[in-house]
Amino acid sequence: MQAFVKTRRAPGGEIQTVPDPRPADDEVLLEVRAASICGTDVHIWDWNPWAEARVKRLPMILGHEVTGEVVEVGKRVKRVAVGDHVSAETHVTDGTCYLCRTGRMHICENVQVLGVDRNGIFAERAVIPEVNAWKNDPGLDYALASIQEPLGSAVHAVLPEENIEDLAGKSVLVTGCGPIGLLAIAVVRTFGARTVVATEVNPVRAELAQRMGADLVLDPTVEPDRLTARIRERTEEQGVDVALEMSGHPGSLRTVFDALSPGGRVSLLGLFSREVPLNFDDAVIFRAARVYGIFGRRLFETWYTVKGLLASAAFREKMAQIITHRVPISELGRAMELIESMQAAKVSLTPRW
Amino acid sequence: MQAFVKTRRAPGGEIQTVPDPRPADDEVLLEVRAASICGTDVHIWDWNPWAEARVKRLPMILGHEVTGEVVEVGKRVKRVAVGDHVSAETHVTDGTCYLCRTGRMHICENVQVLGVDRNGIFAERAVIPEVNAWKNDPGLDYALASIQEPLGSAVHAVLPEENIEDLAGKSVLVTGCGPIGLLAIAVVRTFGARTVVATEVNPVRAELAQRMGADLVLDPTVEPDRLTARIRERTEEQGVDVALEMSGHPGSLRTVFDALSPGGRVSLLGLFSREVPLNFDDAVIFRAARVYGIFGRRLFETWYTVKGLLASAAFREKMAQIITHRVPISELGRAMELIESMQAAKVSLTPRW
Amino acid sequence: MQAFVKTRRAPGGEIQTVPDPRPADDEVLLEVRAASICGTDVHIWDWNPWAEARVKRLPMILGHEVTGEVVEVGKRVKRVAVGDHVSAETHVTDGTCYLCRTGRMHICENVQVLGVDRNGIFAERAVIPEVNAWKNDPGLDYALASIQEPLGSAVHAVLPEENIEDLAGKSVLVTGCGPIGLLAIAVVRTFGARTVVATEVNPVRAELAQRMGADLVLDPTVEPDRLTARIRERTEEQGVDVALEMSGHPGSLRTVFDALSPGGRVSLLGLFSREVPLNFDDAVIFRAARVYGIFGRRLFETWYTVKGLLASAAFREKMAQIITHRVPISELGRAMELIESMQAAKVSLTPRW
Amino acid sequence: MQAFVKTRRAPGGEIQTVPDPRPADDEVLLEVRAASICGTDVHIWDWNPWAEARVKRLPMILGHEVTGEVVEVGKRVKRVAVGDHVSAETHVTDGTCYLCRTGRMHICENVQVLGVDRNGIFAERAVIPEVNAWKNDPGLDYALASIQEPLGSAVHAVLPEENIEDLAGKSVLVTGCGPIGLLAIAVVRTFGARTVVATEVNPVRAELAQRMGADLVLDPTVEPDRLTARIRERTEEQGVDVALEMSGHPGSLRTVFDALSPGGRVSLLGLFSREVPLNFDDAVIFRAARVYGIFGRRLFETWYTVKGLLASAAFREKMAQIITHRVPISELGRAMELIESMQAAKVSLTPRW
Repeated sequence: MQAFVKTRRAPGGEIQTVPDPRPADDEVLLEVRAASICGTDVHIWDWNPWAEARVKRLPMILGHEVTGEVVEVGKRVKRVAVGDHVSAETHVTDGTCYLCRTGRMHICENVQVLGVDRNGIFAERAVIPEVNAWKNDPGLDYALASIQEPLGSAVHAVLPEENIEDLAGKSVLVTGCGPIGLLAIAVVRTFGARTVVATEVNPVRAELAQRMGADLVLDPTVEPDRLTARIRERTEEQGVDVALEMSGHPGSLRTVFDALSPGGRVSLLGLFSREVPLNFDDAVIFRAARVYGIFGRRLFETWYTVKGLLASAAFREKMAQIITHRVPISELGRAMELIESMQAAKVSLTPRW
Repeated sequence: MQAFVKTRRAPGGEIQTVPDPRPADDEVLLEVRAASICGTDVHIWDWNPWAEARVKRLPMILGHEVTGEVVEVGKRVKRVAVGDHVSAETHVTDGTCYLCRTGRMHICENVQVLGVDRNGIFAERAVIPEVNAWKNDPGLDYALASIQEPLGSAVHAVLPEENIEDLAGKSVLVTGCGPIGLLAIAVVRTFGARTVVATEVNPVRAELAQRMGADLVLDPTVEPDRLTARIRERTEEQGVDVALEMSGHPGSLRTVFDALSPGGRVSLLGLFSREVPLNFDDAVIFRAARVYGIFGRRLFETWYTVKGLLASAAFREKMAQIITHRVPISELGRAMELIESMQAAKVSLTPRW
Repeated sequence: MQAFVKTRRAPGGEIQTVPDPRPADDEVLLEVRAASICGTDVHIWDWNPWAEARVKRLPMILGHEVTGEVVEVGKRVKRVAVGDHVSAETHVTDGTCYLCRTGRMHICENVQVLGVDRNGIFAERAVIPEVNAWKNDPGLDYALASIQEPLGSAVHAVLPEENIEDLAGKSVLVTGCGPIGLLAIAVVRTFGARTVVATEVNPVRAELAQRMGADLVLDPTVEPDRLTARIRERTEEQGVDVALEMSGHPGSLRTVFDALSPGGRVSLLGLFSREVPLNFDDAVIFRAARVYGIFGRRLFETWYTVKGLLASAAFREKMAQIITHRVPISELGRAMELIESMQAAKVSLTPRW
Repeated sequence: MQAFVKTRRAPGGEIQTVPDPRPADDEVLLEVRAASICGTDVHIWDWNPWAEARVKRLPMILGHEVTGEVVEVGKRVKRVAVGDHVSAETHVTDGTCYLCRTGRMHICENVQVLGVDRNGIFAERAVIPEVNAWKNDPGLDYALASIQEPLGSAVHAVLPEENIEDLAGKSVLVTGCGPIGLLAIAVVRTFGARTVVATEVNPVRAELAQRMGADLVLDPTVEPDRLTARIRERTEEQGVDVALEMSGHPGSLRTVFDALSPGGRVSLLGLFSREVPLNFDDAVIFRAARVYGIFGRRLFETWYTVKGLLASAAFREKMAQIITHRVPISELGRAMELIESMQAAKVSLTPRW
């Protein structure tokens, strides 16, 4: 079959003909119907320092966000059948470590991520464990279905534990409006947030943030000294109850805490790729802040929440707007450029080789 | 001033001229702009056995749901000013008991309810403690503002603790579509519920339930043997994650547990006024159910949530539909009849004497 | 091998020679080192109505609480090795249903319980899935290790969710001092409860309840009218914050709610085997009570908690006192009698055939 | 009366004769029976940069940790009576702000701290609001009773929300064994922690840490490169589930995250008094850490927990060991030196002028 393979510890990737994968006893084989590109894919494509440190084995097929049709199942597979329309949970877990055994499978000690630690899905076909195959409603659009995984990340950033404060009636700040930030805006709106403020420098994304439901979108480079004050004005001078840091920008980390109401909560998802200094006394301690590191998404609670969100036509319409480009997978390099040049929000890949 | 007073331990009430109330140091005096009728008011009007047992002191001015304009404040009042547009939290608490001191003021050991334990607000003017005066946005419709208190009860039934399971993506059953049941449907919709099923015998209310956002409204008297099966069909045979019992009907209590998914949660708000037999083994224990008794509303978290809900024009429109009748307060007897004859959902009282 | 087998849908059981079991790919084979008897085993031995309704397939090897040494492992087994000292989590789950996928594996839709739905462990050897094999510290006493499973049930009754109210400083009522009730008393003491009151009719168990740390043990048949009053006196008239119903006695259900502080929490574990009438208005709604049905134990959080408890020598000593009798497994009938005649708390079975 | 007064924005303080305070309507007047010294008092005594920035009004009577006998009550005081033995909650709150109204009174927007924002209690007599007067059991030792306030801070660091993970069976790291760190060790032990590791440079405090129940106390300056490895060894290579940072040392902040299990929780109480750089990617995000800023103590839940802890003679004995010195209040300067020279853990002040 055709696949996009990373062959060398250097930028780029190449289309190769590779042997068709076969499902093990507890795996299923998918024919890929849609894929999409995550920031992680861009890092690996570009082979930045994070990728150099993180990726161990090459050659490796790239990509992880995917929807497919099941075309073969291993002999111990029970719930998934040939013909099912599935999306992939992209973190393969061991199921037996301390974390898996205590309801925290998403941070499994031995997690293997598709397209990072094992072969990914930018290919004609791919195998994934049965447990990672999430069955979609038959009528769900392939491209939308493939974005459920980052939507799950957005849900997880919004609700990093099952039992966290209610969003309903709360004010929320989202710093950074990449795809997950945009999805998070739509999510908090759906969950009843009272006020949603976002920050974003890119006008394409700022415009999308408003369509997702942000009440106010601020460019943090315009009047930076007034940034916190403007967020506070919009929240009756109380500051925000919840802040979602999605930019990985050190300045935004400061904004997040400056704008936070005492007792407020912060979710950190954007990677900073360096040490960041923080005045923990004022930012965290006197403010009685709560800070959550966001990695992956709670399995599989977030998938059920995502399913609930996608049951609404209005939500699906919002989500579709985030897919700014649809590109044949054979033009992956061009798709990467669209993202890096900040023209695109989410790029969906169609299975044309 | 004019006021509707309960003078005898018997059905009814009468308009009397009573002395104008004066605010104590920590109280505020309101001029009533709108009031509304709660089921509790009907019980006291009818003087049913609950009222006979519960109400201690007569004569007493009736009513508790109210919006007014502040016309005088006590000398220690700090946050509320003359001219403010306020609604009343109707439970007056002592602030110093074990429950008040541990974040559970809504079940204060010495709670006094307006129109039940002390003079109420079906009058031209009323005094309430400053802490019970909730400041509304100036432009909020008086009638809607007076329904914030039962909306808070609906919010509390939906979210009986700050940290409870997320509604987002969940399936919810509401048994009984009186005003609080109707409000609860609108609330769970706003919080992202995936599927909402309601039961109701009264066609006026069943129709309103659909307008509030119920996906399916079932008459429990039609094919009662199929009731649970139909709820399960609508929830992919998993049953509902959350059930809100708002009817006080013993049959509904059974429905609630029969339709509940294992691990699901039940909020009980409707009063049964008698012992109800239950097979706790199957209903609660093997099902690993969680059951919450709902009384009042968490103070003042629910009011902030309500404020957030009312920030949305769509939500305000839904809520306005629940007010099926507006009646001059001088015709309180007629208003009571509208409710008892099941023609009305919520009746709003206008200050015409 | 030798095994105690239920062959007929009638009281009793018999020793038979059966083929040695062989582990499947994901299973391990244990040589039984100690077993213990649960109330469920007694019901099946006696073949009461619950057993008649619940048990489907016979013949079946009885028993589920067990410690053993691993003597063979299936070829896909990774974490457990020959020679390991393990106890069994006795609920075999499917791992893929809605409940397993949302952190509620203990109420798996397709749960199979050892000795109830599939062959148990009153035998020389037994197979269990690898995931159900909990590795003990090598030095842990076999008999104690086999009681970890009911200790996990006690922990789960005390803490039915990860995030529930703290026990520290709270007052607790335990109604019914069978083995799980006794364990629960020891557990709440360890977790910092301020006051622990228990009810029990059997003097042997009442004495043990005190040794476990109860401050006051009341016989509910002595001055029953004063029972609630005495509990309230011992809790500064506030009532108990948490009540654990372990008796399955309808009268105790009433006691539990009468003695509960407003806003308090009830865990129901004892089975009533019939409908029980309750005044939900006073018991649950006005009291703002929270009620949890307790089934099994959260997997595997409770096992880690149990491990932590058993790290304390003082706790192990308490626990050892609950094992009032050690009986060769070949005398299972006599062991059953010891329990039914209320002479025993926990009976440990030694592997002598 | 005699009082220790800060008169100038400079180090030190002086005994002065000041007018006797009189209770307002909602206040009570105490005769001081015991006081104790908090780190904050030392900062104000030394007049460090934090004090210079924080303290607004002088002259001011110093001190906040106190036990006294009520000798006069204001006319609206209801629950506290002359002769009562009370300790002071030292944060005076407004009761009406957003935070007070949403169960977060301990971070009241307008909080006034005794001895920081208003007159304190290093005096013969002091007035506090009734609501701040916590009634002790009559027999409780005065010196112990005065340490309830920092014990409440320790409880709050251990349990920063009502609904947080259970300590039972968990491993805990405490960095910094000042009085609150020492109290925290005793608290987590009481709540059932499996393993408790502490770090401390001062041998007096390290010795006390062991007496409080630490399994292992490490000097972070000895083999600093091996510090994290040693903590991991002691926790079966999983790292700690919960870490309490009590030192305010930047190096300890790093230790806390390095030693933390994925999904673990950190409470930050020690003040750093400067910006601290942190690699948030590795420390917080990939680790899915949760971080809580700890300020004050939840009111009044922590006081009830403290009351529960003090009900145990064993706990009171541990606590008494933390009071390493008892000094007449007239020798306050000497008491300050004992703390600054690291000879003392907690210094109790007796009312000798």
